[in-house]
Amino acid sequence: MEAKFVPNIVVGRLPLYLRTLQLMNQEGRRVTSSQELGERLGISAAQIRKDLSQFGEFGKQGTGYSIDYLTDQLRQILHVNKVWDVAVVGIGDVGHALARYQGFSNRGFRIVLLFDNDPQKIGTYVGGFIINNISNLVMMIQEARVQIAMLSVPVEHAQQVTNILIEAGVKSILNYAPINISVPTSVHVQYIDPVLHLQRMTYYLD
Amino acid sequence: MEAKFVPNIVVGRLPLYLRTLQLMNQEGRRVTSSQELGERLGISAAQIRKDLSQFGEFGKQGTGYSIDYLTDQLRQILHVNKVWDVAVVGIGDVGHALARYQGFSNRGFRIVLLFDNDPQKIGTYVGGFIINNISNLVMMIQEARVQIAMLSVPVEHAQQVTNILIEAGVKSILNYAPINISVPTSVHVQYIDPVLHLQRMTYYLD
Repeated sequence: MEAKFVPNIVVGRLPLYLRTLQLMNQEGRRVTSSQELGERLGISAAQIRKDLSQFGEFGKQGTGYSIDYLTDQLRQILHVNKVWDVAVVGIGDVGHALARYQGFSNRGFRIVLLFDNDPQKIGTYVGGFIINNISNLVMMIQEARVQIAMLSVPVEHAQQVTNILIEAGVKSILNYAPINISVPTSVHVQYIDPVLHLQRMTYYLD
Repeated sequence: MEAKFVPNIVVGRLPLYLRTLQLMNQEGRRVTSSQELGERLGISAAQIRKDLSQFGEFGKQGTGYSIDYLTDQLRQILHVNKVWDVAVVGIGDVGHALARYQGFSNRGFRIVLLFDNDPQKIGTYVGGFIINNISNLVMMIQEARVQIAMLSVPVEHAQQVTNILIEAGVKSILNYAPINISVPTSVHVQYIDPVLHLQRMTYYLD
């Protein structure tokens, strides 16, 4: 398929569709509809059809979507029909949780490298992985050709470590530090900040 | 101000604006513009002006926004001009990280209750909080009038614990389990799933 521009907000909904399809598959389901997907996700059926139509024709009017087929297509579109190696930098509480997180499997990612700067932690193991010295980050990430990092260092180190990750060739950073980081336009950043989600809900509370 | 319907997607951007303003304030800044906010966030200045205009007039053409004033207004709109009590249910790696997370302070939230079902954990302390028996959850949450919970239990228990939280009167759930949970329409759910963010970035990687 010819690459065409798809708004980032549309791209952001595809992983939600994929997750829901994979859960339906686990439930033993074979076929779904934009209506059902929409109800599970709180997104209108029309929006889902419009989003998917940007990438091709995946279902037939009246018969719905084959869950297997649409899952495969979304995995291809999102490039998670292979497994990406991921580094975790900063093995405090969050990094520790990420190193042991069970939710990556079968979704396109695996942790391969952990880094910290604390001599007490370097050389110890978390979740089966050794914690490496952050001084070796550039070399080790380049050698392993890792393009994705999860950043779980304290706020005050986040930008400095980001710069090192970029020097090492990392192209995607998932930032857990509650601060915006500056990166070149060739690098993508996503943020995990629980407060953003909590504040979005307190809007509706009195 | 008369309550009017604002799309959820607009509400979802307000915490981003607030976080950026609070960071600017920490940098000693006094005034900003929709252009500058937009550049920091990767959102168009026009979108930001349109979003804010749903709630009132916060800036003047040519002079921009007072950071203090707009911060106060956004805190009021999002109802985080007070501190909300939050319960954490499931004190595994993620719950442990949440109990010790430093990013809540001055943003409208504080952890007050921790729960788990593991007899080895119940009665021990994490981040200064005792881990309570999940059997006492309904009573303790009702007594403390907690309306917000962070759910960090294993996937297979997520729905069951959600049902208990709803029975206890919780109105907002931040779900860390990588599964969609069913709630009545009066309850709001947000999801934290790192894979959704990672997949959104691999779309742009080869």
